[in-house]
Amino acid sequence: MRPSGRKTDQMRQVSFQRNVSKHAEGSCLVKFGDTHVLVTASLEDKTPPWLRNSGKGWVTAEYGMLPRATGERMKREAATGKQGGRTQEIQRLIGRSLRAVIDLEALGEKQITVDCDVIQADGGTRTAAITGGWIALHDCLKWMETRNMIKLERVLKDHIAAISCGIFAGQPVIDLDYLEDSAAETDANFVMTGAGGLVEVQGTAEGKPFSREEFLNLLDLATEGTKQLVELQKQAIA
Amino acid sequence: MRPSGRKTDQMRQVSFQRNVSKHAEGSCLVKFGDTHVLVTASLEDKTPPWLRNSGKGWVTAEYGMLPRATGERMKREAATGKQGGRTQEIQRLIGRSLRAVIDLEALGEKQITVDCDVIQADGGTRTAAITGGWIALHDCLKWMETRNMIKLERVLKDHIAAISCGIFAGQPVIDLDYLEDSAAETDANFVMTGAGGLVEVQGTAEGKPFSREEFLNLLDLATEGTKQLVELQKQAIA
Amino acid sequence: MRPSGRKTDQMRQVSFQRNVSKHAEGSCLVKFGDTHVLVTASLEDKTPPWLRNSGKGWVTAEYGMLPRATGERMKREAATGKQGGRTQEIQRLIGRSLRAVIDLEALGEKQITVDCDVIQADGGTRTAAITGGWIALHDCLKWMETRNMIKLERVLKDHIAAISCGIFAGQPVIDLDYLEDSAAETDANFVMTGAGGLVEVQGTAEGKPFSREEFLNLLDLATEGTKQLVELQKQAIA
Amino acid sequence: MRPSGRKTDQMRQVSFQRNVSKHAEGSCLVKFGDTHVLVTASLEDKTPPWLRNSGKGWVTAEYGMLPRATGERMKREAATGKQGGRTQEIQRLIGRSLRAVIDLEALGEKQITVDCDVIQADGGTRTAAITGGWIALHDCLKWMETRNMIKLERVLKDHIAAISCGIFAGQPVIDLDYLEDSAAETDANFVMTGAGGLVEVQGTAEGKPFSREEFLNLLDLATEGTKQLVELQKQAIA
Amino acid sequence: MRPSGRKTDQMRQVSFQRNVSKHAEGSCLVKFGDTHVLVTASLEDKTPPWLRNSGKGWVTAEYGMLPRATGERMKREAATGKQGGRTQEIQRLIGRSLRAVIDLEALGEKQITVDCDVIQADGGTRTAAITGGWIALHDCLKWMETRNMIKLERVLKDHIAAISCGIFAGQPVIDLDYLEDSAAETDANFVMTGAGGLVEVQGTAEGKPFSREEFLNLLDLATEGTKQLVELQKQAIA
Amino acid sequence: MRPSGRKTDQMRQVSFQRNVSKHAEGSCLVKFGDTHVLVTASLEDKTPPWLRNSGKGWVTAEYGMLPRATGERMKREAATGKQGGRTQEIQRLIGRSLRAVIDLEALGEKQITVDCDVIQADGGTRTAAITGGWIALHDCLKWMETRNMIKLERVLKDHIAAISCGIFAGQPVIDLDYLEDSAAETDANFVMTGAGGLVEVQGTAEGKPFSREEFLNLLDLATEGTKQLVELQKQAIA
Repeated sequence: MRPSGRKTDQMRQVSFQRNVSKHAEGSCLVKFGDTHVLVTASLEDKTPPWLRNSGKGWVTAEYGMLPRATGERMKREAATGKQGGRTQEIQRLIGRSLRAVIDLEALGEKQITVDCDVIQADGGTRTAAITGGWIALHDCLKWMETRNMIKLERVLKDHIAAISCGIFAGQPVIDLDYLEDSAAETDANFVMTGAGGLVEVQGTAEGKPFSREEFLNLLDLATEGTKQLVELQKQAIA
Repeated sequence: MRPSGRKTDQMRQVSFQRNVSKHAEGSCLVKFGDTHVLVTASLEDKTPPWLRNSGKGWVTAEYGMLPRATGERMKREAATGKQGGRTQEIQRLIGRSLRAVIDLEALGEKQITVDCDVIQADGGTRTAAITGGWIALHDCLKWMETRNMIKLERVLKDHIAAISCGIFAGQPVIDLDYLEDSAAETDANFVMTGAGGLVEVQGTAEGKPFSREEFLNLLDLATEGTKQLVELQKQAIA
Repeated sequence: MRPSGRKTDQMRQVSFQRNVSKHAEGSCLVKFGDTHVLVTASLEDKTPPWLRNSGKGWVTAEYGMLPRATGERMKREAATGKQGGRTQEIQRLIGRSLRAVIDLEALGEKQITVDCDVIQADGGTRTAAITGGWIALHDCLKWMETRNMIKLERVLKDHIAAISCGIFAGQPVIDLDYLEDSAAETDANFVMTGAGGLVEVQGTAEGKPFSREEFLNLLDLATEGTKQLVELQKQAIA
Repeated sequence: MRPSGRKTDQMRQVSFQRNVSKHAEGSCLVKFGDTHVLVTASLEDKTPPWLRNSGKGWVTAEYGMLPRATGERMKREAATGKQGGRTQEIQRLIGRSLRAVIDLEALGEKQITVDCDVIQADGGTRTAAITGGWIALHDCLKWMETRNMIKLERVLKDHIAAISCGIFAGQPVIDLDYLEDSAAETDANFVMTGAGGLVEVQGTAEGKPFSREEFLNLLDLATEGTKQLVELQKQAIA
Repeated sequence: MRPSGRKTDQMRQVSFQRNVSKHAEGSCLVKFGDTHVLVTASLEDKTPPWLRNSGKGWVTAEYGMLPRATGERMKREAATGKQGGRTQEIQRLIGRSLRAVIDLEALGEKQITVDCDVIQADGGTRTAAITGGWIALHDCLKWMETRNMIKLERVLKDHIAAISCGIFAGQPVIDLDYLEDSAAETDANFVMTGAGGLVEVQGTAEGKPFSREEFLNLLDLATEGTKQLVELQKQAIA
Repeated sequence: MRPSGRKTDQMRQVSFQRNVSKHAEGSCLVKFGDTHVLVTASLEDKTPPWLRNSGKGWVTAEYGMLPRATGERMKREAATGKQGGRTQEIQRLIGRSLRAVIDLEALGEKQITVDCDVIQADGGTRTAAITGGWIALHDCLKWMETRNMIKLERVLKDHIAAISCGIFAGQPVIDLDYLEDSAAETDANFVMTGAGGLVEVQGTAEGKPFSREEFLNLLDLATEGTKQLVELQKQAIA
């Protein structure tokens, strides 16, 4: 029995609120239950040094948590003077995931920075950030298309969505909230495209090792879950 | 004529949304027009080193801006590795302002950290942070009172509210938005208590110097404006 | 009664010693009683990035304290790895104050860096730095005029001087020393031009809030004080 | 055809050289072909703050690369002033993997730090570090057992070994060297116990997404590969 | 012929101005010609962690240069965020040199920090800092003796003085100024006690290597020079 | 009697293992007894900013210690966020020493970075790094000559070798190991060319001051020792 009363294959209520920023080219407030992430996609007329004069653009991500997004207040990373290992790991994951569906040549020599700031955390912030990040990125590219800078369909090749799964109380479950996450035996994150292809798979045994069969159960849950998320993305941008 | 069409003594629409955080003891989303600041007040069972065994508590503030809170994306301070001078100046101001109405002995050996994160910026973020910070701080103290940790009325001595004023196109105006702020000849911030006492006064000539008379005009506007803000705070916590 | 026996409107002994540096284009050892600040103005043939090819120059300031300038030795900021919030706040104030009387276009694409290093502190270091900084800046511009780089009178539009005032033991007093400063109920700094215009006004209630009337008393003291400081500057450069 | 001429399921020559450090309680120079990692396990009579008085110990890992371990010299992280995101990600992975087979209560309030320094890199440094790290950790625990500090078999619950697999030129292959790694379509790392349990699974699509079937092929290769590595570990400590 | 017209064995005018700081327990403004270093010795009632409960004290030194102490303005180390290699090398040398004549057990569990800040540089700042540092340290210990904290003669075992020598235009010369220093073929620093013992010897070939004979010539010059400096120290504290 | 049983003028077993790196243009694993330093020389097609368009190249060195190269594990400098004073002092010494035998004009606008990483420490790491660094540098230059980039004999003017000497138990001894080093009364390092010229001399009294005669004894030992080291270098590159 899950603390929230959800069924093992039941995700939390997911919503995307678009255009929440007056300034950003694309933006989205994404909610997976009590996990709320504010995502902005910012177009910049530059590229990283290693792409200069290559004709290719870049999509990168940054991730942060407000200090009291969590149950205990955490130290502000700007005040401690560096981004922690967890932060860097997550923002690298978000960036790789979004780039997996972008044609960087079709984008041209521009950079889009996707900022994912966790307003409130209740487990699954990185998967919410990726899933909502796709909406903000889509809207930024739409903004560019409106100005004849790109062809949206040539740059954005597919949807991308992410979900966590884990083994909680001996059961494979989807979309863990904080209570489940902190007690799970195994914790995994999956990033998949609209066409069902895998982009990132990350599984970690928190307690005892997991088996091939258990891992496949998680993969099955994630496959179904990301399919639903992609459907919700389609409704959101319709 | 102000860009927004407001009268010289007319503030923007101000609102306080309380209890916006699932985790924080007190929280408030404060809006001054398009300036939106998310404030959380976090109770911690510790005090800074210099107050150990003094019987006194502490209230401190931290301030941050999401990278795309502004028209141009700014670098994330956590990534650059330090808080800029402007950030530090503002968070010191917020902390001093809030402490001005707190009886630190009545609080006892606790620390309350007020985090002010600018979600969207359109001028006046520091004054919105102070004004909304008072709400979050009030609610945190209320939370403590409910648990018999303090007597609210002994700890919180008065209201505190802040407003910017400036000379724009030769006219003294209140509550400058970004367009006005970037073109103002003089820019000032005032922090006042519910009883009308001054706690902080900061005026800067951006272009030519200002006169005593001009400064008094700004002070008069601010006196009236903070009175209205205190009234709105009272309605918000009613 | 002030600890030093001074009258409420009596400043400490103020002196400017010019040309104290063998290397700097302009330099001044300024003393306000036991507060001693060594100021150098350094001409550099560059401008900050945002002014490139604008035809305009820049004046900026840096501030530091020797570790044992104070009663208790403070940590060396170079060793701790960053400038504290107070340091940054002060050096931003000095820079803004000096730029208020400079015509940056008439200066041309040069940068002058005014370094203010507190050799000994006894209250009022920032106001001494601004007042002495004007002398060093003047002498640097004079050095440039001698070499036909600028016209001094076109670049330097007016004098700038600064003084602290505060409410000590219930009385408005001028030019607080450390003993007064640490016990003052209200502490304010004023920066004014030779023509009597206000450039910066900063007032802070250290204990209870202050009233409009009290603040005007401080402003009156400062107006008289900066007038005297400008007179002393004129004698110094005569 | 693999650049090295290896078969798709053929690992590079793997060797463990024990006791390579005069000082460390456990040490190992592990080689996977031209990838050479020097691992030391250092016993320290302390634990991290959050474990004080818990009776539990800790195993942590740090990872570094000598600047010219790679084809192009990389900047020394000590000189740039921080560990990059990749470094932090890898050392977190190593630490989690080794802790998966340690009974922290049986270890008692001690910390073992496993330093993994890449002397020469040719792909697969993280998997070599984990696999060789197990040897160094084993030898450190053996050193402790000899001094009656612990019972080795109670602290060290199983073997741990890691291997990379990927899809190169359309084929699933094991133990990618640098040439393969930089051209692979999919890149995955697997960490498994001696009993065949999964501890960490990480797969990333570098080019196009991968399918469930492709991922299972990689998992099968890894299962066989880690079995061989565990066998080699057993021979090494025999 | 030396640029300054001095003879090869002629030092610059050396002076010690004592008690230049209102706050420090010992202080000295030392001048070697145009090289001016302000030294303060600060007594602190603590010791570094590794001496806790050892009954022994510590003497340490910190070194800094004001940004415009030199011909070209240098970046402020507090602003760049770290002390450069040269700064650290010099402050370690000063600390070691002063400790060479201190009986740390007789000092007891106190720390004296000797801050050496270069107000103006013209070559030989480290040797001036050591030589003047001895005066400040002596005066700090005298201050302590007056308060019955120590016996001066038991703590301070001897004088310490330092001088630079070098080979300039083929000639061994003493006390190089900046012009000589930047053109010298060999540059050496010597730290000697009042009894004539060597404490530190540092010689560097800037251009071609130097011979044993040349080095002995420098040592002879230094032996005579430090003898004179010790004599001047004796006069200064008389 | 030395702890190792060596005679006072007897160095430890010294060996140079060339070409230990698959990637570096020059490399050497140098051993002085139990002190092992891995040195790589990396050719980069750039020069430091101050040499741009000067036609001259540069040779620089970096130094590091693996955390458990020593008896007690030391903190990893990359993790603490800066290189310590000792590290910077040593790498500056290595760079100066190697440049002393390089004709930077004959090298042309290239930079060679010599990385010296201490794998295992037992005293004398800096002198081993310099002596082995010469081999790596030689091999890098040889690599360049093979590609017609330079003439080796025009760039590399002489051998360079370094050795430590000290006064241990009242006796002058050569090549101190850690046990001797930590108990020595005087500790000195000498860097000499193949022709017998002195490049660096550094002597420090750890306990009581040393005399001119004692220092000359050390210099004599070092002269003989570096002669032997140069001989070993010649054999190594033969």
